[in-house]
Amino acid sequence: MGILLKEILAVLPKDGKDEICRTDIYLQGDKIAGIGAEPEGFSGEKVIDGKDKLVIPGLINAHTHSYMALLRNVADDLTFEDWLFGHIEPIEDRLEPEDAYWGACLAILEMMRSGTTCFSDMQMHIHQTSRAVSESGMRAVIARGLVGSGDDEAGQSRLREAYEEKEAWKDCPRLTYFLGPHAPYSCDEDFQRIVASEAAKNHMGIHIHLSESTNEVENIRGQYGASPIALARRAGLFDGLAAAAHCVHVDEEDLEILKECQVSVITNPASNMKLGNGFAPVPDMLAKGINVCIGTDGAASNNSLNMFHEMNLLGLIHKGVRQKADCVSAREIFRMATIGGAKALGMEQTIGSIEVGKKADLAILNLRTPSMTPRNDLLAGLCYSANGSEVETVIIDGKITMEDGKILTLDEDRIYAEISRICRRLGIEKD
Amino acid sequence: MGILLKEILAVLPKDGKDEICRTDIYLQGDKIAGIGAEPEGFSGEKVIDGKDKLVIPGLINAHTHSYMALLRNVADDLTFEDWLFGHIEPIEDRLEPEDAYWGACLAILEMMRSGTTCFSDMQMHIHQTSRAVSESGMRAVIARGLVGSGDDEAGQSRLREAYEEKEAWKDCPRLTYFLGPHAPYSCDEDFQRIVASEAAKNHMGIHIHLSESTNEVENIRGQYGASPIALARRAGLFDGLAAAAHCVHVDEEDLEILKECQVSVITNPASNMKLGNGFAPVPDMLAKGINVCIGTDGAASNNSLNMFHEMNLLGLIHKGVRQKADCVSAREIFRMATIGGAKALGMEQTIGSIEVGKKADLAILNLRTPSMTPRNDLLAGLCYSANGSEVETVIIDGKITMEDGKILTLDEDRIYAEISRICRRLGIEKD
Repeated sequence: MGILLKEILAVLPKDGKDEICRTDIYLQGDKIAGIGAEPEGFSGEKVIDGKDKLVIPGLINAHTHSYMALLRNVADDLTFEDWLFGHIEPIEDRLEPEDAYWGACLAILEMMRSGTTCFSDMQMHIHQTSRAVSESGMRAVIARGLVGSGDDEAGQSRLREAYEEKEAWKDCPRLTYFLGPHAPYSCDEDFQRIVASEAAKNHMGIHIHLSESTNEVENIRGQYGASPIALARRAGLFDGLAAAAHCVHVDEEDLEILKECQVSVITNPASNMKLGNGFAPVPDMLAKGINVCIGTDGAASNNSLNMFHEMNLLGLIHKGVRQKADCVSAREIFRMATIGGAKALGMEQTIGSIEVGKKADLAILNLRTPSMTPRNDLLAGLCYSANGSEVETVIIDGKITMEDGKILTLDEDRIYAEISRICRRLGIEKD
Repeated sequence: MGILLKEILAVLPKDGKDEICRTDIYLQGDKIAGIGAEPEGFSGEKVIDGKDKLVIPGLINAHTHSYMALLRNVADDLTFEDWLFGHIEPIEDRLEPEDAYWGACLAILEMMRSGTTCFSDMQMHIHQTSRAVSESGMRAVIARGLVGSGDDEAGQSRLREAYEEKEAWKDCPRLTYFLGPHAPYSCDEDFQRIVASEAAKNHMGIHIHLSESTNEVENIRGQYGASPIALARRAGLFDGLAAAAHCVHVDEEDLEILKECQVSVITNPASNMKLGNGFAPVPDMLAKGINVCIGTDGAASNNSLNMFHEMNLLGLIHKGVRQKADCVSAREIFRMATIGGAKALGMEQTIGSIEVGKKADLAILNLRTPSMTPRNDLLAGLCYSANGSEVETVIIDGKITMEDGKILTLDEDRIYAEISRICRRLGIEKD
């Protein structure tokens, strides 16, 4: 089906920056087929009127644990240890695979509603999540969370699961698989080495948590004589495509390694604050030329999967911490949330910007909202005043998944009912 | 008209805390007439079904400059001086009174849509703002922004304007007037003294900016040998009801003064970060027993007037700054946004909580949204996962001003059209 976005304001890349122009955008099949001029052979079956609309490249949530949407608002205002060991893990231990499926559906619903068209997940229930992605029309990169030491059987069996899942969904163009060595405190150096070699052999990217807390950094230094980042490089995890979530407590040597190895940093501002971990030095990373992208982390530690929320935080917190109002700009942040995320996933040739030949992954915002009025600097508005509720239509892989606020590919009522049923069984829904 | 909120989840105060209960709430005239039991003589003409809804006390935005919604997204990512003198003031100088009226309408629209039922404004165009408040059904406390030195004519004429406006709207129960000595750098000590004595004589509260930036604190100390807060006390501004916005750069002595003089602090997290000023020590203020409430500041430095955004920031930033995940809780923050704001305005007997006899100022949220699913801890949800778009019905002074997402008291289309016309004339709307 061909779709014409007619005379619409669009965020378009130009010379490594974004600008907003009014134009016609032609979608054919799964791709953006033309911008400004009708492509040959275009057969438009649907026209979306661009009046009072802004189309943006779909946002890319580069680090989350989708099914944990089930655990939203279940344990807050607690120290990290109390939160994780006292509350989150005991509930996670009682989850059944089908719970994870509905949790992933809820997460996808929330992300789609707020303009995210691709997410990068790390977790255990990858089959259920793949099902939810496949059915919903979402795009995702799914990393099997791996923990292990040396070549123990537990680690090996998780690796096999990753390959099986990759094979099972090889015909779905919206699903990609990474390996997800969880963190240096849950994967020892030998296991990191094994994962690195497996990733190279299977042409898979790496998705890892690194240097999230001061405790982690101190313990790893004590144990290995190297920072978590230096250890990951030593183990070979940075030899191929790699993205590291958090990177909050990093030093100059760490930044050098990330830059030299072309590792993408996924910053998670809400989660890092909420768990009391602090602020990643994003302005320094940008100054160094490191690719920085954005993740929400899971809803248990955020408690939202809304990338507009995350862009906004990123635009504010570093200005506050550094007492420097110009240390990061809305323009940089919007690129982190789009093309930056695409680069982290090795997909910058196919998603992350509105360009001819790229996948048609788009979010269309209603500009007749207080947050986008007046229409002064709309790129600033995306970062500082929008909250995601402006998104009314979403297109992924050329298909409309949400139209005028209605989700077409998921049964929203069913999701709410199933989540309620599950959370009552788990004893966490209070009402 | 009587309204029954039937079997609805409600945030109700109990022993100085909030809890969520399912109950019936009866509204009669401008008041909450009964909770749980039908009050005598109740004549319900309208029933709102509580299924999948949560009713909260309307949020109180305790510090804003409403008409500056016109300047949303007009100048961002700039140092404070460049922002104010290079961009904001030159546009403000070209504003006509009618522009301020439409700016206030836009601000009220945004606040109402996101569950705010009362705002405290400081500004110059108080007549136009009063008009917009009166027409829209909103509640507001309006402080004439005052600048002056000694008994100069400029300061005196602004004071007269405040009294005239107070007199003009004396029959509108939703409008209250404060005096708004702008800041110690724009009001010298003698003028502060005059304002303090005028406030006492006229039984008006004080709304002032204090200790927003390090520059301000250094300059005032140099000039007067006292911090901005100590100076304000010396001048008598804290002798009656007083609320101070910002209080970012404060020392122990300042906190002592605020506590001793029962001054409310209005914290503005977004604006303080956005302009590079930093973080007010809110956890220390709470520990000291100072009444802290929340403001958005103007949309030129935020860029939103959405109190859910502000609650969320407040819940995250101090945890990040102090690397302490339990240093402020969602429960404390929700009270700051409601009863804390009411106290700051001297209205804690009439607004700020759902109690029999108080004004019916309420916001009703739809819980069938991803952000409020599952229904685990809904008070945490209000702070950490809601973004304000869940608000679908708003009642102010017993009248429904927004119902099922539709604003009943303002012409939303007209507002967008007028704002666009004004911003084109000013040359700031780009599209």
